[in-house]
Amino acid sequence: MIKKYKLSHKKYNASTTILTSNLSHLNSHVHEECGVFGIYSAEKTNVAMQTYLALYALQHRGQEACGIVVNDRGIFNYHKDVGLVHEVFTKDILHRIEGGNIAVGHVRYSTTGGSNRVNVQPMVVRHMKGPMAIAHNGNLVNAGELRSEYELRGGIFHSTNDSEVISYAVTEERLKTRSIEEAVEAALSKLSGAFSLVIMSPQKLIACRDPHGFRPLSLGKLGKAYVVASETCAFDTIGAKFERDIEPGEIVVIEDSGIRSISTHCKKVPSATCVFEYVYFARPDSIISGVSVQHARLRAGEFLWKEHPADADVVIGVPDSGLDAALGLSRASGIPYGVGFIKNRYVGRTFIQPSQSDRTDNVRIKLNAVRETVRGKRVILVDDSIVRGTTSRRIVNLIREAGAREIHVRISSPPFKNPCFFGTDIDSRDNLIACKMEIEEICYQIGADTLGYLSIDAVNHLADGANCGFCDACFSGNYPLPVPDEIPKDKFEMKI
Amino acid sequence: MIKKYKLSHKKYNASTTILTSNLSHLNSHVHEECGVFGIYSAEKTNVAMQTYLALYALQHRGQEACGIVVNDRGIFNYHKDVGLVHEVFTKDILHRIEGGNIAVGHVRYSTTGGSNRVNVQPMVVRHMKGPMAIAHNGNLVNAGELRSEYELRGGIFHSTNDSEVISYAVTEERLKTRSIEEAVEAALSKLSGAFSLVIMSPQKLIACRDPHGFRPLSLGKLGKAYVVASETCAFDTIGAKFERDIEPGEIVVIEDSGIRSISTHCKKVPSATCVFEYVYFARPDSIISGVSVQHARLRAGEFLWKEHPADADVVIGVPDSGLDAALGLSRASGIPYGVGFIKNRYVGRTFIQPSQSDRTDNVRIKLNAVRETVRGKRVILVDDSIVRGTTSRRIVNLIREAGAREIHVRISSPPFKNPCFFGTDIDSRDNLIACKMEIEEICYQIGADTLGYLSIDAVNHLADGANCGFCDACFSGNYPLPVPDEIPKDKFEMKI
Amino acid sequence: MIKKYKLSHKKYNASTTILTSNLSHLNSHVHEECGVFGIYSAEKTNVAMQTYLALYALQHRGQEACGIVVNDRGIFNYHKDVGLVHEVFTKDILHRIEGGNIAVGHVRYSTTGGSNRVNVQPMVVRHMKGPMAIAHNGNLVNAGELRSEYELRGGIFHSTNDSEVISYAVTEERLKTRSIEEAVEAALSKLSGAFSLVIMSPQKLIACRDPHGFRPLSLGKLGKAYVVASETCAFDTIGAKFERDIEPGEIVVIEDSGIRSISTHCKKVPSATCVFEYVYFARPDSIISGVSVQHARLRAGEFLWKEHPADADVVIGVPDSGLDAALGLSRASGIPYGVGFIKNRYVGRTFIQPSQSDRTDNVRIKLNAVRETVRGKRVILVDDSIVRGTTSRRIVNLIREAGAREIHVRISSPPFKNPCFFGTDIDSRDNLIACKMEIEEICYQIGADTLGYLSIDAVNHLADGANCGFCDACFSGNYPLPVPDEIPKDKFEMKI
Amino acid sequence: MIKKYKLSHKKYNASTTILTSNLSHLNSHVHEECGVFGIYSAEKTNVAMQTYLALYALQHRGQEACGIVVNDRGIFNYHKDVGLVHEVFTKDILHRIEGGNIAVGHVRYSTTGGSNRVNVQPMVVRHMKGPMAIAHNGNLVNAGELRSEYELRGGIFHSTNDSEVISYAVTEERLKTRSIEEAVEAALSKLSGAFSLVIMSPQKLIACRDPHGFRPLSLGKLGKAYVVASETCAFDTIGAKFERDIEPGEIVVIEDSGIRSISTHCKKVPSATCVFEYVYFARPDSIISGVSVQHARLRAGEFLWKEHPADADVVIGVPDSGLDAALGLSRASGIPYGVGFIKNRYVGRTFIQPSQSDRTDNVRIKLNAVRETVRGKRVILVDDSIVRGTTSRRIVNLIREAGAREIHVRISSPPFKNPCFFGTDIDSRDNLIACKMEIEEICYQIGADTLGYLSIDAVNHLADGANCGFCDACFSGNYPLPVPDEIPKDKFEMKI
Repeated sequence: MIKKYKLSHKKYNASTTILTSNLSHLNSHVHEECGVFGIYSAEKTNVAMQTYLALYALQHRGQEACGIVVNDRGIFNYHKDVGLVHEVFTKDILHRIEGGNIAVGHVRYSTTGGSNRVNVQPMVVRHMKGPMAIAHNGNLVNAGELRSEYELRGGIFHSTNDSEVISYAVTEERLKTRSIEEAVEAALSKLSGAFSLVIMSPQKLIACRDPHGFRPLSLGKLGKAYVVASETCAFDTIGAKFERDIEPGEIVVIEDSGIRSISTHCKKVPSATCVFEYVYFARPDSIISGVSVQHARLRAGEFLWKEHPADADVVIGVPDSGLDAALGLSRASGIPYGVGFIKNRYVGRTFIQPSQSDRTDNVRIKLNAVRETVRGKRVILVDDSIVRGTTSRRIVNLIREAGAREIHVRISSPPFKNPCFFGTDIDSRDNLIACKMEIEEICYQIGADTLGYLSIDAVNHLADGANCGFCDACFSGNYPLPVPDEIPKDKFEMKI
Repeated sequence: MIKKYKLSHKKYNASTTILTSNLSHLNSHVHEECGVFGIYSAEKTNVAMQTYLALYALQHRGQEACGIVVNDRGIFNYHKDVGLVHEVFTKDILHRIEGGNIAVGHVRYSTTGGSNRVNVQPMVVRHMKGPMAIAHNGNLVNAGELRSEYELRGGIFHSTNDSEVISYAVTEERLKTRSIEEAVEAALSKLSGAFSLVIMSPQKLIACRDPHGFRPLSLGKLGKAYVVASETCAFDTIGAKFERDIEPGEIVVIEDSGIRSISTHCKKVPSATCVFEYVYFARPDSIISGVSVQHARLRAGEFLWKEHPADADVVIGVPDSGLDAALGLSRASGIPYGVGFIKNRYVGRTFIQPSQSDRTDNVRIKLNAVRETVRGKRVILVDDSIVRGTTSRRIVNLIREAGAREIHVRISSPPFKNPCFFGTDIDSRDNLIACKMEIEEICYQIGADTLGYLSIDAVNHLADGANCGFCDACFSGNYPLPVPDEIPKDKFEMKI
Repeated sequence: MIKKYKLSHKKYNASTTILTSNLSHLNSHVHEECGVFGIYSAEKTNVAMQTYLALYALQHRGQEACGIVVNDRGIFNYHKDVGLVHEVFTKDILHRIEGGNIAVGHVRYSTTGGSNRVNVQPMVVRHMKGPMAIAHNGNLVNAGELRSEYELRGGIFHSTNDSEVISYAVTEERLKTRSIEEAVEAALSKLSGAFSLVIMSPQKLIACRDPHGFRPLSLGKLGKAYVVASETCAFDTIGAKFERDIEPGEIVVIEDSGIRSISTHCKKVPSATCVFEYVYFARPDSIISGVSVQHARLRAGEFLWKEHPADADVVIGVPDSGLDAALGLSRASGIPYGVGFIKNRYVGRTFIQPSQSDRTDNVRIKLNAVRETVRGKRVILVDDSIVRGTTSRRIVNLIREAGAREIHVRISSPPFKNPCFFGTDIDSRDNLIACKMEIEEICYQIGADTLGYLSIDAVNHLADGANCGFCDACFSGNYPLPVPDEIPKDKFEMKI
Repeated sequence: MIKKYKLSHKKYNASTTILTSNLSHLNSHVHEECGVFGIYSAEKTNVAMQTYLALYALQHRGQEACGIVVNDRGIFNYHKDVGLVHEVFTKDILHRIEGGNIAVGHVRYSTTGGSNRVNVQPMVVRHMKGPMAIAHNGNLVNAGELRSEYELRGGIFHSTNDSEVISYAVTEERLKTRSIEEAVEAALSKLSGAFSLVIMSPQKLIACRDPHGFRPLSLGKLGKAYVVASETCAFDTIGAKFERDIEPGEIVVIEDSGIRSISTHCKKVPSATCVFEYVYFARPDSIISGVSVQHARLRAGEFLWKEHPADADVVIGVPDSGLDAALGLSRASGIPYGVGFIKNRYVGRTFIQPSQSDRTDNVRIKLNAVRETVRGKRVILVDDSIVRGTTSRRIVNLIREAGAREIHVRISSPPFKNPCFFGTDIDSRDNLIACKMEIEEICYQIGADTLGYLSIDAVNHLADGANCGFCDACFSGNYPLPVPDEIPKDKFEMKI
């Protein structure tokens, strides 16, 4: 039974202070939790290097921490730390984990669990049958209940990660089953929520996806080796060939004798892939459930034009994620596409925070308007979403200062009105401007002339032709499975 | 008298080995030498922070090293090191050089001088009249002769930088003149070549540009403070207002009593601003000599279409510098503009070099083709230049693999045929494919169906309306001033 | 029942190759596993800083890794990493874990468990009743059995540390008991081997020592705060006052209401404190079981003179641990004490390994003979132990080269003939020269004129007056409790 | 003519505040400026590695910065930075400067010049004849005058180092002479003060010492290679053989054809080697001017006993520099030598500063009294010097707290009463307690029962038999050459 999430819309109270709080850079956009990768090579190859390159391609899915575990004839060598892939893995460190023929990797943005080292994945543990590594993308809805259950049997937890809970679930079943894959199969019955998993045992690589298929997971081949990745762009980077998506509920087992699929958990519930993967999370060059992400974004632009047309001279997008929808809108409308902003290529690295002085804000450090493009013009400005509204207001202001006559903001997704329980940081209505204001009020707050959001109906048609259904709960409140009243705050905070 | 640079075109010999050498990532594109910045504030402000933000905006002009010197009532506090701006200047280090009211900054890509620390600018020295800091963008043609002259008088050199030579020239004159600006004025008579300089003395900030004006340099205001920068995008980042360009040959003196200009070196020779600043070096949001860089790039696309039309279904650009010209070509031709590549946002940071394995090349790590955009289509592919051809071949191959039916490569500049002596690393005909092959041969080598370069005539009209003439010597061989037969190799190499 | 450890003395075969293998620096001496510290302050104080200073004083007990956990009203903040205390804890990091009123700290040398981060202590886990931190000095004899037991119940292990096993043991009991101290009391019945523990729960600090009391553990007061430490030198450093030793088998509970002792495990077996703590491990300024370590070392020198007199002109010690025994021998014999070696104060930090060239060895980098002291003289050279013999040979050679006429080596402990199972790295007879050669053969190998070891009888009288018995198993083979046939090799190796 | 330095003894005013200011750790003891090393090998050898090891042995002479310059067939490769030798030179960095057959190295403690990177030696410059590297130990008295002279001729300075002044002096002469050695010979006439120099040209290694021979400099052989070093302990570490001291005023030239000596500057003035080298600066295992440093220190203890006997039960020294004199005093007096303190082996690395809390002081972190040694006893406590008195008071207090009945402090040098102009940081009478108080007052201030300093006469007999005279100006005020009224403060301060 699906629980309806009740919204308590606070009335708009004309206050502008809501937009001026000192926000950290990290909170200015919605974040995905993670990216995962696995490789099984029957032949000798540098699996650590391939995993490194794949994580590098998946870096957009998690910039806080990363890790690689290599299985060298049963010995699990690994390295993981807080930082970007190229920071954590120097040439020297990568060299130290060379060897072996199976590997799993992970990039992390922490939605649950602190950002300290103990939470960095893949989780590597040893149970009765030997070592096991787990890389997880998603969020369990029943992690707290499972944690309590294992604690009541004497379990101890080092981290606040769902992957440690999953480790217990698999381990518990492993004691009763004949193989790791049977253990995973049995464990899946206990796990509720979003999980795309890559699990490595001494002999096998196992990939599986929750029955709803919230997060993507694909299978590819690199020569004779098998690879699994959160997104197909990782395959392109290492020169692997896309084979197929892992099905919602499917367990794929790769071992010496070949590849097998366990489908006992498939098709018991309607699939519900996160539609925001298409709008923002995934890289445009990835293919999810058979549909190109870029194609979906171009369509978002088309739909936006249909739903919210405007008389304008130029269409511009907010880099990088608004560009494709802007191009789509331009094509649909015939209004010329222009480059409205230059984004500092080195952005995200400075320690500068907003409001360090009256003149400086971090939007200005990151983005500069191209006057030539907008001066004296009526501008359609396309972005993928509005979270708090602060950044949008600054962006609109940049274009206004650069001489735009009119600014029509178009958002290639519907308003966020509900928390996400499935692996993103849309965690509280308190941070969502659309929970507090009507659209016309938001328009006023961000300083636009008009504001149009994509409809919920349209967002569900972005990836028409995809072999899956979608989760639009953050927009609609229609959760595909029962969710708790609120997202629990972790009480086990640890610094560093 | 202008010396003609003689070319000895080697005949095309059908060898393909020229394209397969193991090239470092850094050599795959032409590089600018430097970016400079200066600020003079009569009032109390955080000049170190403003310089930091400005250098961050100028980072594209030099990624090897950077430095900031702050003048705190005559005490010169500074920090410089090898690395990007955000790497070299942590919050803590920036805090340590806070205070003061004048500052100069520099970002460096080393064309001459090794990449070791001693060459990092600004150059800070003490002469008889006190400390002096010099930030330099450009290359002297007569640095070697001047160096010998000063050595013969007992001078010693710590670096292989032109800025140390300039320091000697200014110091020599300072002993005979009453002020630093008179010393700079006199020194300019001795310096031949390209130099946009920002010089700081205990009391003054001086900006000047060589009489040809090879490299850009602009003046702005930030409240009551004056700022100078290589590009106007630095002004936008810190919220400063563009005032005007520094004229070729002009010396601008900023001190307590205000701002003055010395124009004795102006208008004695025709101006010759580097036209490749518009094509590639500068940021599209900058304005050089009154013309928007983005505007010039859009025009390059238009010209390309006029000079080299092609039947095609989509126009794509190579990120980031080919995108604007692609958009211009699309607009001129009516052929739809598409996003053909996704560039890894984190590129440039991995230690991975090309040819580490047969399957992996660094172009693939950096760029991924968007199949959706090019599959089954006739593609016009726009890039800004071809240096060795290796990278172009790989890029064409990516698009071919992604299913393009035809690939028509269009280059938004003429072929490089001559070394540059004025501050870029186009240093030797040995590395330039256009010195070794005819265009049809290059087309074959890079695997394109057709190949068209912009004409020399067209490149000189990219910035029509600019208040300056242009240097196109790297394309035409017409050097605006006498140059040596070859670019001398430095013999004073020092590691680290 | 005590199992006798059978030795299979290989016969001496005149080979010298045994001494020339390329040994890592770390293996040139016997190492202790760990040092522990805990503080409970009812009042507001900087417990992180006190722990830092205490660990700094205990650094000699473990140089590979360290960690501090602070309990700030139930929130456990911590930082741990590989490295020395001053390396791991910068001012900034220490600042981040400030606050709170209870803390535990640990310095580690890894005898079991790899040197990777996951093994760094204190172990911090969360069980059903909340978080728990454990710092452990010693080695369990039955860790493997317990590990298997917990794994069979679904337990998973992140590390190869005994402290994780202990965490499970305490957690298991915690589910059945009303308090953490009752859980510890119950768990002690399951643990066999050496363990001095400091355990922190949300409300309490618990210190306990195994019933044999293998490793030291002392209680002190710092104002109104209670402190526990492996050695009393930590008390002196922070200005705390020594109160008393924790008794073998005793559990001390410190909480808001005061301090209590649980003695159910006391005095059931004879105490067996490691006698090598006096000979080498502990700092000379510490007091163990009522006897000054320095006093014991001076006595070792006296005993050595009685057991192995020699006609000589000067007595010198190998820094630092041989100096006290040398002074004692000098006093007993009346032969002048001299400074025979200067030790590089910065030693232990260079990456230089032995045998990098024929002329360079790491003993020479570390130690230099003082010619003035030994030239032309008959020298008594005192050291604390001989492990492989390689280092001893080099040291003897240094003195020989410096002109000594005769060299009489005296070792302030008996020959190592048996592995230690209680927290040191005397782990295999393969590495012990005394298991392979008779004393006269060792003497010949190290190049001495005569060689005398302290007798087993004497070593048991070094600390006469101590309120404990001693374990001399590494010398005598008399293990105070049953031990396995061999020390198991860890199969769960992980790099970094 | 020798200028007498007039002292203005301030009267003792019973204030105790003088001892309680918050002093940085670095100021608690007198510091030497530098150590130098050079190697010339006709054959292929790893000169960078030998220099590294030698600097490691000389580390006590300078802990702030270090550098190595290698001459690889005329190319000067180098690395220098702020930090200890093992910190600045990782394996990787040392590998990068491998090759070549000549090298110079330097360790630095900055007495003049800031601690920023530009001042790190060796100084590497290029003059008309090619590159030159200079490593300098000492201080010029006329550096300011020379600097002005070169500035007036157009010279520019990057650093505030005397070695840059020396570079100019040598370069000036090099233009007029046929060889680098003639240039050095001529330059020496201009330099006044203390300088032990190692100079490297493309073909030669030159070592020279000022005519007074203030700082030591020795010549050795390593196989067929020649080595020069500040102290002979560097020779022992690399296995080199001591040949002889470089004479005061001597210039030694090492080149392909062999070794030569230029003695034109020798024996024109009486030699005046710094006597405090024996007391404190040099390592005890070094031989200076034919006399063992340790021998001199033992003699200091003998003299102390003769000049200031005391009824006592034990003699202890303050580690490390007071230990030898304590041993000498013990031998002379027959009073037993004891180990009174344990010094934390890791000291000097923590960021902890004194007075962070009432209970903690950095002396306690560094040193711990051994109660066993001093409890209930009359103690003679030997240290090498007293600068401000603060540290001495804390040390006396440690022994008092440990139960000593009487404490008789003996200092193995006379009171510091005058600044040193020759390469140490005894720079101002303001910091010297002996300039402000009579001895009995100092005794009271530091809390001793009696206090005895070595007499000036005795200190001049410590190294009887040395082939040199001594400078005792810091004690006596008798400067061997004219000195300025005060030590000038540098105005060219630069951070980082």
